[in-house]
Amino acid sequence: MIKKGESEMKRIALVTSGGDAPGMNAAIRAVTRLAHIKGIDVIGFERGWDGIITNTYRVLTPRSVGGIIQQGGTILYTSRSQQFRKTKGQQAAAKMLDKNKIDGLVVVGGNGSFSAAYEFSKSTNVLIVGVPATIDNDVYGTDETIGFDTAVNTALTEIDKIRDTAISHERIFIAEVMGRTRGFLATTIGLTAGAELILVPEVKTDEKKIAKRLAENTRKGKKSGIIVAAEGIGDTRKLAADIEKQTGSEVRLSILGYAQRGGSPTARSRLLANLFADKAVNLLIKERGNVIVGLQNGKITSTSLETSCKTEKKLDLDLLKLANALAT
Amino acid sequence: MIKKGESEMKRIALVTSGGDAPGMNAAIRAVTRLAHIKGIDVIGFERGWDGIITNTYRVLTPRSVGGIIQQGGTILYTSRSQQFRKTKGQQAAAKMLDKNKIDGLVVVGGNGSFSAAYEFSKSTNVLIVGVPATIDNDVYGTDETIGFDTAVNTALTEIDKIRDTAISHERIFIAEVMGRTRGFLATTIGLTAGAELILVPEVKTDEKKIAKRLAENTRKGKKSGIIVAAEGIGDTRKLAADIEKQTGSEVRLSILGYAQRGGSPTARSRLLANLFADKAVNLLIKERGNVIVGLQNGKITSTSLETSCKTEKKLDLDLLKLANALAT
Amino acid sequence: MIKKGESEMKRIALVTSGGDAPGMNAAIRAVTRLAHIKGIDVIGFERGWDGIITNTYRVLTPRSVGGIIQQGGTILYTSRSQQFRKTKGQQAAAKMLDKNKIDGLVVVGGNGSFSAAYEFSKSTNVLIVGVPATIDNDVYGTDETIGFDTAVNTALTEIDKIRDTAISHERIFIAEVMGRTRGFLATTIGLTAGAELILVPEVKTDEKKIAKRLAENTRKGKKSGIIVAAEGIGDTRKLAADIEKQTGSEVRLSILGYAQRGGSPTARSRLLANLFADKAVNLLIKERGNVIVGLQNGKITSTSLETSCKTEKKLDLDLLKLANALAT
Amino acid sequence: MIKKGESEMKRIALVTSGGDAPGMNAAIRAVTRLAHIKGIDVIGFERGWDGIITNTYRVLTPRSVGGIIQQGGTILYTSRSQQFRKTKGQQAAAKMLDKNKIDGLVVVGGNGSFSAAYEFSKSTNVLIVGVPATIDNDVYGTDETIGFDTAVNTALTEIDKIRDTAISHERIFIAEVMGRTRGFLATTIGLTAGAELILVPEVKTDEKKIAKRLAENTRKGKKSGIIVAAEGIGDTRKLAADIEKQTGSEVRLSILGYAQRGGSPTARSRLLANLFADKAVNLLIKERGNVIVGLQNGKITSTSLETSCKTEKKLDLDLLKLANALAT
Repeated sequence: MIKKGESEMKRIALVTSGGDAPGMNAAIRAVTRLAHIKGIDVIGFERGWDGIITNTYRVLTPRSVGGIIQQGGTILYTSRSQQFRKTKGQQAAAKMLDKNKIDGLVVVGGNGSFSAAYEFSKSTNVLIVGVPATIDNDVYGTDETIGFDTAVNTALTEIDKIRDTAISHERIFIAEVMGRTRGFLATTIGLTAGAELILVPEVKTDEKKIAKRLAENTRKGKKSGIIVAAEGIGDTRKLAADIEKQTGSEVRLSILGYAQRGGSPTARSRLLANLFADKAVNLLIKERGNVIVGLQNGKITSTSLETSCKTEKKLDLDLLKLANALAT
Repeated sequence: MIKKGESEMKRIALVTSGGDAPGMNAAIRAVTRLAHIKGIDVIGFERGWDGIITNTYRVLTPRSVGGIIQQGGTILYTSRSQQFRKTKGQQAAAKMLDKNKIDGLVVVGGNGSFSAAYEFSKSTNVLIVGVPATIDNDVYGTDETIGFDTAVNTALTEIDKIRDTAISHERIFIAEVMGRTRGFLATTIGLTAGAELILVPEVKTDEKKIAKRLAENTRKGKKSGIIVAAEGIGDTRKLAADIEKQTGSEVRLSILGYAQRGGSPTARSRLLANLFADKAVNLLIKERGNVIVGLQNGKITSTSLETSCKTEKKLDLDLLKLANALAT
Repeated sequence: MIKKGESEMKRIALVTSGGDAPGMNAAIRAVTRLAHIKGIDVIGFERGWDGIITNTYRVLTPRSVGGIIQQGGTILYTSRSQQFRKTKGQQAAAKMLDKNKIDGLVVVGGNGSFSAAYEFSKSTNVLIVGVPATIDNDVYGTDETIGFDTAVNTALTEIDKIRDTAISHERIFIAEVMGRTRGFLATTIGLTAGAELILVPEVKTDEKKIAKRLAENTRKGKKSGIIVAAEGIGDTRKLAADIEKQTGSEVRLSILGYAQRGGSPTARSRLLANLFADKAVNLLIKERGNVIVGLQNGKITSTSLETSCKTEKKLDLDLLKLANALAT
Repeated sequence: MIKKGESEMKRIALVTSGGDAPGMNAAIRAVTRLAHIKGIDVIGFERGWDGIITNTYRVLTPRSVGGIIQQGGTILYTSRSQQFRKTKGQQAAAKMLDKNKIDGLVVVGGNGSFSAAYEFSKSTNVLIVGVPATIDNDVYGTDETIGFDTAVNTALTEIDKIRDTAISHERIFIAEVMGRTRGFLATTIGLTAGAELILVPEVKTDEKKIAKRLAENTRKGKKSGIIVAAEGIGDTRKLAADIEKQTGSEVRLSILGYAQRGGSPTARSRLLANLFADKAVNLLIKERGNVIVGLQNGKITSTSLETSCKTEKKLDLDLLKLANALAT
């Protein structure tokens, strides 16, 4: 084990970037405390990459990150930086890291943040480690991201409530969930909500098939139902209207919205934050960088930033088949 | 105290009608059990007024209503009956109540249900007692309806989550809440969520004033904010776009949706259900009908169906002033 | 309306004292902001009365109390001061208030805090206004205290979970809830949880009657059940053992514990905090003191500190009768 | 893929046994529906093994298991059978399975249930598949059991509330969590709650070390703290008293209790229920039995009943080290 002071790593920086995710604060706390134990100083730049460019940061200490493990959002704020997309922005950031004598940079964020980090790695010698935190779970190199489990449970809690009304009114409800261009959230939410149908961007939406399925359900005695639709499939308002027309029954739409991005992280999101932070600090101590950490087949692993950015994570279509069978 | 068998009331019926509200099941349970103790039989018609017309009902017993106090929705289903709006439908219903030897009818629902009940009272001798249950809280004759407190807390929980993202991204969010044409839900939610602004149909929305207020907030150092808007104010999508244009800052919209109508009732919604049911059964035993029960100034009261239907409940504008002061 | 600067009140202080209650922070925020609008400065002494004696305080501003409305506990900390019980402590505190030029003191707490405040009012000219905040709801002068509704809902959520196990194992569970020497919490929790029995200190516990009732329930087909017991009734461990012996059935005990004291306040606890704070600030502006504010029959009122301290709040025994009837 | 009717498996039975766990109903639903699709009939014996002996069962159909995925507890009831521990009981059960023409038996439960199943497998030819469902997570052959994640989150929610009071009163709280003789629950709860200390049966409790650690914390400025203690470590009441004596500070104890066993299952508990059920049905179709299903390194696997019963699952002590480091 590397002891306090043995590593070349003396001072690291943290940024949270892109959309916020529950558990980012748990990751900030864990990185700060685990680095501190190894004798490494930590600063946190504010508002993502912008904070590096403008040199806006705060010193993070074991005490200053106390009491945040259970808080949603990020105490370091976040943004989608326009400046950092340009070479000039990246150069300014690289200079600022040097000026602050930063040896390692932990980037807590999702796909967009890691792509930016990968680009940035070409302009800086600072070792970069990505900690995947996004509710969308669309990062290659990890089976699960920090925040995903929380967003799934938040959506589930809402859908469990919507089902009360669906059953009482014997109606079909479409619940539109987040997930950007991908169906990870919709699949897990639909499978665990007991949805009648799950619609994801990875599978073409076939309105006739949907109408047929709903008609079958009616015959079977299922008078109400929940359709979970990923935001990535397109206009759910039109979909609801189309299904109404095809089935002759009322269909209601509920767009679950931004609540999915916030709230106190679940145990699992906090656990991943702790485990990822541990791995990230250990990698930096060993002077390994330009990787992201992740959970793969139950183990904590690392994957090169480049591979993560250039590879598309596959959605497990077997889960959709299982959901379909379970909706019998 | 009237004892078992002393009242003329031998057999009463229950319907839940209109939009469902958390606590309807608690009311069904309480009416059934309290009537049973007094020696009164209870049946529950299904799907609101439609169930009376089609004579679709189930016998309710103390055991059959066990384990439902904590469930959202209504085990009797609900609907907005088209047939019942016509004289013919009401006559058919009156006949069916006679056929079933119903002496009293408990209507669990909101404004629309009570208007229908009031009309119906002209065609039947069956004593009608309304139990106000709607998340909208827009019933004259009660300070609070069953389900209101639950909906407020559901919305609050979501807004507390949205605030995490609002703060992390330093952005303005509009949270559209339910309430139909009225601002009861929005006012209480906004006041308890610590909203920067509350927009209700009872007060004209002034976009310039909103923009001015948000600009002031920015000057004061408030970089994020929540605007709670009642669905009754009109197109919140357009509002968000307009405010974006006026302030030059990003504004996000989240429509909280149908989750507000479901879920396990809060203690307060269950308590009101119990107290209202108690009053309803006591009124029927004393052969008083064509009233709604309610909570007024901390006491359980009754108001004539006619007065309730013909009077508009006032929104307490002082609460909006207080919310405004608190958002300083 | 009194405008900014018109009142003699220039500077007020806040303390939170005794057991913490959810909504105390909402009250701190509301008092601070509403006073600020009227041109009054606010400071918050830390750790209850001890903070006055030791002159440990922080200046409270509209910004410094931002983002706390949804937080449990109290940012000002709280304690049960030993020193303040003595005349010497009270004199020291009075001196310190003078030194800080405090014109009014808002005490957020329960019975114990108000008794201390009443004693203290004899040693100081500073106007004192009590804001009732305690989960126990045992304060005379208000139908409901800040925090009560939250504690009830927290307990209810737990009991709803315990019921799953009670039903699955067909067993009796005793859920011991807080409330100190009184049965307010137990009564409302039991009534809304659908408890088979509610045991409160205000009514003598009769183990034979309990056993008889449980035996009747078994005959009726109720194989599981929840007994809600106030902590004030004495040793629930012994009670569980005694009932086991009398009924020959397994009885499990769950002491709900300190979680009832914390957590994000419900809408109602926050609403009361806002309304009570508004009244408290308005009273101070009008130079009225030595009162507590409260909710009585749906109105916000004030009651003299002396009356509040010297009068015992009655438990509504009709609620217990209703609960008993509902458990049929 | 084996199609409907191709397998020898015509009729299977389900039992839930031992302590209930959130997600058991989701497993019942999934097994029933997935078997049905393959043309297999399903019956559910009630009250665990007792139901087999007494031939108390209900036919399970896709419709009869509708609307239960989100419910805690088990609709089939559960018990710890005394009769089944004896050879005579097992023989009676074997006969009854034959009489009902049962080809396969799915046992949803924990360690105790699987030991009984293993014994039983010696007296019957019916193929047995175990589906691990217990909040304790102490089953060898799976990294996680159905219900574990729910229990962890329930405890976490309570501890997050307790922390409010701990901070407000600047006190140490011991939160005793379930887990029977093992520390799986305590470890994950402590790690995600940000506990100052985690006490598990797998590591000897050293009161002096605890006192020393708490004293260090005080020096560091940590005035409050949460100690998560597994019920398996022994008398926490005595521990609290001992620590009080050693540190001279007040220590409060909260025993989280039976709420940990109930409640609506989290997404993850429901997901595992679905995946385990899928595997169980597939194994039975292929006529493989006397195994338990599980999640190992991210994959759904099977392990022989014998191995599962005879091997002790290891607690990952590295998690405790990590928790210790994070509590710095």
